[in-house]
Amino acid sequence: MAEQFLSERNLKFLLYEVFQAENLLKYPRYAEHSREVFDMILDMAMKMGKNLFKPCLSEMDKIQPEYINGTVKVNPVVKTIMKECGEGGWIAAQAPYELGGQQLPHIIGLIPLFIFGAANYSASVYPMLTTGAAHLIESFGTQEQKDYYIPKMFAGLWQGTMALTEPQAGSSLSDIATTAEPTTHGYYNIRGQKLFISAGDHDGAENVVHLALARIKDAPAGVKGISLFIVPKYRTDENGKLISNDVNCAGIYHKLGYRGAPITQLSFGENDDCRGYLVGEPGKGLFAMFQMMNEARIEVGVGAAAIASAAYYAALEYTRERPQGRAITAKDPTTPQIPIIEHADVRRMLLFQRAVVEGALSLLMQCSFYSDMEAVTEGEERQRYNLLLELLTPVAKTYPSEMGIHSVSQGLQCLGGYGYCDEFPLEQFYRDVRIHPIHEGTTGIQGMDLLGRKVIMQKGKAFTFFLEEVNKTITAAGKDIELKPLADELAGAMENLQKVTAHLIGIAVKGAQDLFLADATLYLEAFSIISIAWQWLLQGIALREAVNKEVKPNDVNFYQGKLCAMHFFFEYELPKIQGLFKRLLKADGLTLAMKSEYFSDNA
Amino acid sequence: MAEQFLSERNLKFLLYEVFQAENLLKYPRYAEHSREVFDMILDMAMKMGKNLFKPCLSEMDKIQPEYINGTVKVNPVVKTIMKECGEGGWIAAQAPYELGGQQLPHIIGLIPLFIFGAANYSASVYPMLTTGAAHLIESFGTQEQKDYYIPKMFAGLWQGTMALTEPQAGSSLSDIATTAEPTTHGYYNIRGQKLFISAGDHDGAENVVHLALARIKDAPAGVKGISLFIVPKYRTDENGKLISNDVNCAGIYHKLGYRGAPITQLSFGENDDCRGYLVGEPGKGLFAMFQMMNEARIEVGVGAAAIASAAYYAALEYTRERPQGRAITAKDPTTPQIPIIEHADVRRMLLFQRAVVEGALSLLMQCSFYSDMEAVTEGEERQRYNLLLELLTPVAKTYPSEMGIHSVSQGLQCLGGYGYCDEFPLEQFYRDVRIHPIHEGTTGIQGMDLLGRKVIMQKGKAFTFFLEEVNKTITAAGKDIELKPLADELAGAMENLQKVTAHLIGIAVKGAQDLFLADATLYLEAFSIISIAWQWLLQGIALREAVNKEVKPNDVNFYQGKLCAMHFFFEYELPKIQGLFKRLLKADGLTLAMKSEYFSDNA
Repeated sequence: MAEQFLSERNLKFLLYEVFQAENLLKYPRYAEHSREVFDMILDMAMKMGKNLFKPCLSEMDKIQPEYINGTVKVNPVVKTIMKECGEGGWIAAQAPYELGGQQLPHIIGLIPLFIFGAANYSASVYPMLTTGAAHLIESFGTQEQKDYYIPKMFAGLWQGTMALTEPQAGSSLSDIATTAEPTTHGYYNIRGQKLFISAGDHDGAENVVHLALARIKDAPAGVKGISLFIVPKYRTDENGKLISNDVNCAGIYHKLGYRGAPITQLSFGENDDCRGYLVGEPGKGLFAMFQMMNEARIEVGVGAAAIASAAYYAALEYTRERPQGRAITAKDPTTPQIPIIEHADVRRMLLFQRAVVEGALSLLMQCSFYSDMEAVTEGEERQRYNLLLELLTPVAKTYPSEMGIHSVSQGLQCLGGYGYCDEFPLEQFYRDVRIHPIHEGTTGIQGMDLLGRKVIMQKGKAFTFFLEEVNKTITAAGKDIELKPLADELAGAMENLQKVTAHLIGIAVKGAQDLFLADATLYLEAFSIISIAWQWLLQGIALREAVNKEVKPNDVNFYQGKLCAMHFFFEYELPKIQGLFKRLLKADGLTLAMKSEYFSDNA
Repeated sequence: MAEQFLSERNLKFLLYEVFQAENLLKYPRYAEHSREVFDMILDMAMKMGKNLFKPCLSEMDKIQPEYINGTVKVNPVVKTIMKECGEGGWIAAQAPYELGGQQLPHIIGLIPLFIFGAANYSASVYPMLTTGAAHLIESFGTQEQKDYYIPKMFAGLWQGTMALTEPQAGSSLSDIATTAEPTTHGYYNIRGQKLFISAGDHDGAENVVHLALARIKDAPAGVKGISLFIVPKYRTDENGKLISNDVNCAGIYHKLGYRGAPITQLSFGENDDCRGYLVGEPGKGLFAMFQMMNEARIEVGVGAAAIASAAYYAALEYTRERPQGRAITAKDPTTPQIPIIEHADVRRMLLFQRAVVEGALSLLMQCSFYSDMEAVTEGEERQRYNLLLELLTPVAKTYPSEMGIHSVSQGLQCLGGYGYCDEFPLEQFYRDVRIHPIHEGTTGIQGMDLLGRKVIMQKGKAFTFFLEEVNKTITAAGKDIELKPLADELAGAMENLQKVTAHLIGIAVKGAQDLFLADATLYLEAFSIISIAWQWLLQGIALREAVNKEVKPNDVNFYQGKLCAMHFFFEYELPKIQGLFKRLLKADGLTLAMKSEYFSDNA
C-alpha cells in the first residue's frame, strides 16, 4: 500500500504562498487564530488521516455495511472516527465559538476534509455530513433546536444527513412528495420515502438526524411548497429517553464503490408516528437546503480531488519502483530495465494527474477563500465574494469529479495489469471516484446551473466579477517573462469564452431556452478548463516569486515540478477548449432534432 | 435487466450496405457461402448470445472463479459454452475447410465475437482465445501438432491461451526469461513463470494449451532469442493417456471487472518435467506470436465496442422509462414529468454512446474487410491490404478501448444513482470495459506502435494507402449535398494530420527519437478520431444512398438516427483533434524535461 496520499508541501504552498491565509487573521472573526494554529491543524489532520482513516481504507471497501433487521451495521471504526472527529473538534471546526466550534476559516476547514478524503473518502463522509446538517440547524433552526441537536452532533454522537431524493424526485426536487401534516403540538407528522440517503442509518452513531425536505399539507406544487424539517431517527419522550421516531431503514444499495458508507432507503411514518420539526419558514425549505447543498457540492469537489490525489501518489510510487523497458535511445536488451517513470508517456500520465489534482485543489481553495471573505466583509464587497462563490460552485463540484475519474484512470493505467487488480488501491479509487459526477447534482444539472442560472443572474454580474478576477491574474502574470506566454494564452481563452457566452445568451434572448441550454455541459467543461488554467497561472505567480528569491535546497524539486505541471496544463489541457468552443459556437440544436424514436431500430 | 444489447439492424447495415460483404462471395475461398449463410450465422449467434451468454452475465461477475488446490473452478456454464461453441462451429468459424473449419470471412467471423462479447464479455473470451491459439498452430505448427491439438481445441474441449507476460516482462517482451532446454527427444524442457494469463487454467476444459514464449538455452538476448512453444497443461503418455505436464497454476488475480474469466499465474517446470513443443523456427517466436497478438488486438477492440454497445442499450432503455423533470420550456410542476430521454443533455449522452459504438464497430469491420481482401488477393494488392490492416490495428484496438470507457461511463451517468448500483448492469460494464486499454498492449504501447513503427514503415507506404482510402471516401461523399460539409471537414482534418505527421517525422529525421515519440499517445488519439470520422462518412454515403431511394417505413427511424449520430460525431467528437494537433505541433519535450525527482516534495 502506498504511503503517501497527498502533498503537505503543496497544501502549505496553496495556503500560504498562493492564498495567503494569514491575511485572514486581521479580521476580528479569525483574530484569535495564528499561522501556528493553522499549521497545527494540518499536522493533527495528517496524523488522523494516517493513523485513523487510512488503515481501514481497504477493509471498509471489502467488508461492506450490512443491512440486518432494519438497521445498518457498519465497520466499528466508524464509531471511533465519529467520536474522534467530535472530541478533536473536527466536526465543529468552522462553527462559531458560541456553539462550541473553533471558528476556523473555510480555507483551513478544507484541509482536514481533503486529508481525510484522500485517506479514506467513505469514512470522511460521516463527520462531513454531520457538519453540514448541524450548520443548517445553526443557520435556520430555533434556539431550542440548536441547543438540543448541535452539541450531540458536534460530539460525533449523532449522525447528520441530508434527505432530499425520493423515488420520483431525484434531480427534480420540485416533485418531492413526502408530506408533513401539522399537529397542534408544534411538530409535523411526516410520511414518505427517501432514497439514496448517505449514512442514513448505521450503528456507528447513537442517533441519526435527517435534514429532510417535505411538503406541508395543502402547500402549493413545485419548489415553493417545499419545507425543511428535522426528522430524527430517535426522539426524546417526556422523560428524556430516546424512543423510536418511526423512521425505518428499508435497505441499502450495493454500489460500485464508496462502499464504506451505507446509502440507504428510508421510510418515514410507516406507523403514522414520525415527527418532523420545521426548520425555518414554511415553503422556504429548498432555499435553506441550498446552503447545505452548496457546501456539499464544494465538498464533493474536495472528495474527488482527494481520491485523485491518493491515486496519483499510489501511481507515482509504483512507477518509481517498477522496472520495465529501456529508453527509446538505448534498446540494448542486455542493459538493465529502467523504472517506468523514465518513460515519457508515463511521465505524461503522472503530470496529467498532478495538473488535475493540484489545479482542482487550488480552485476549491479559491472558493473557500471567497467564502471566508464573504463572512468578513459587507455590502458590495460581500456581494462580490458571494456571487463569485455562487458562479464557481458548479465548476468546483464538476471539474474535480469529472476529471478526477480520468485522473484516477490514468493512475490505474500507470500500473498496467496490476492497476486492474485489488492488490493495489487503484481499482478501489477508480470505483470510489465514480460517484462524484452523480451525487449532489449530476454534471448535467451543474451545467444548467452554471449557464442557465449563474452566468446570467443579476445581468451577468457574477460573470463580470469572474472576468475581473481572471484578468487581475493575467495582468500580474504578464509581468513575468516565463508566465507571459501563458497569460496571453489565457487572455485569448477568456476572450473566446466571452464570445461564446455572448453567442449563447443571444440565443436565450431570442427565447430559444432549450437551444440555449442544449450544450450547457460542454459550456461547463470549457469554463472549468479555463478556471483551472487561471488557478495554475495564479500558482505560477507564487512559484515564480519563490524561485526568483533564494530557494531552499529542499524546495527545488517541488517548485520545478509545480512549474512543469503548470506548463503541462497549458500545453495539454487548455487546448481542449478549442474543440468545445467550435461546437458551442455552432449551436445547431442537433440533440434537440434527434427525436427519441430515432434511437429505435425500427418504426 | 435490459433486453437489447446490440443492434442487429446496424450489423446488417454495416455488413451489407457499407462493406458489401456479399462481394466476397465472388472469390473462390468464400464461394461456397451465400448471403443466406451470413444471415443464418447472425441469427444463430444472436440466439446463442441471448440464450447462453447473456443469462449468466451477472452471475459470472458475482460468483468469481475460485482457486482451489492448484486449479481454478469456474462457473459450470463455461463448460457448456465451450462445448456449444465447439459443436456449433464457432471456434473454427474462420478456419479452412481442411481443418474442419467453416472458412468464413473475417468480417462475418466478427459478428459472433461482437454478439457474444456484448452479451457476456468474460464468457466470450474462452472460445475466442482458443480460436487464436489454434490459428497459431495452424499457421506455424507441424502437421503432427495440427492433427493432435486443433481438433480438440475446435471441439471446445481444450482451452487455448497466449502465455507471454512474465514478472519482469510485461510490456517489455524482449525481457522474457522463461527457458527452453533442448532434449534429444524432440521436446524442450520449459522452466519459468507466466503472469496475467487469461483462462490459463480452469475446470471448464479438459486441457489447456498454452502458446508460450520462451528462450532456448544460449539464445541471444532480446527479441531475437525468443521462440514459440506449445506447452500443454496435460500431455499424453506413451499409452495415449493424459498426464500432468508440470504446468502449475500458482493463483488467480482478483480484478476490478472481467471477473468471469480467471487471469492466472502459471509456473512451468517446477518439478523439471514441463515439456514444450517448438512451433515454427527457433528465434522467430515473437514474429509468430504477433499473428495472435494482432488478432487479439482487433478482438480487444471488438470486445470493448461490444461492452459499450450493451451499456448503451441498457442506458437507452432506462432513459425511455424513467420520468424525471420537465421540458425547459414547460416548468409547471403540476404537469407530469417526462422520460429523461426527452432532455437534450441525456440525448447528447446517448448520441455520444451511439456515435462511439457504431463508429468503432465500423472501423473494426473495415479492418476485417482488409484482412479478408488480403486473403484473396496477391502481390501489390495484397500488400496494400496488409499494410492498411497493420496501420489500423493499434487504432482499432485503442479507440474502442479508450472511448469505450467514456461511453460506458456516460451510459452509467444516464442512470444517475442507479447507474452506480448493482441492480443495473452499468456498474459491471464500467468495471469490465476498463481492462481493454491494458491488455494486449497498453494504449501507450499502441501509440508508439502507430507512430514509431506503422506510420513510418516502408517509407510511409501504409500511411499513404490510408490517405488514399480516406480521400476516396471524401471524394465520394463530396458529391452528396448533406455530406459535402462533412467531407470538407474531414479533408481539412486529413490535411492537418499530414502536417502534424510530417512535423513529427521531421523530428525523428533529426535523430530526436525520444522527442518524436513523446506524445505518441496523443497522436494515436487524433489519428483515431479522424479514422472514426472517416468511418462515419463511409456510413453516411450508404445512409444517403438508402434515404435517396424509397425507404421502408420500418427503416425510417434507423436511418434518421444514424444520420444524427454521424452528424454528432462530426460536431462533438471530430473537433477534439484541434487541441491535440495544437499540442502535437509544439513538441517542446515537456515530459522529457520533467525529471523524475521533480515529482518529489523535497530534495
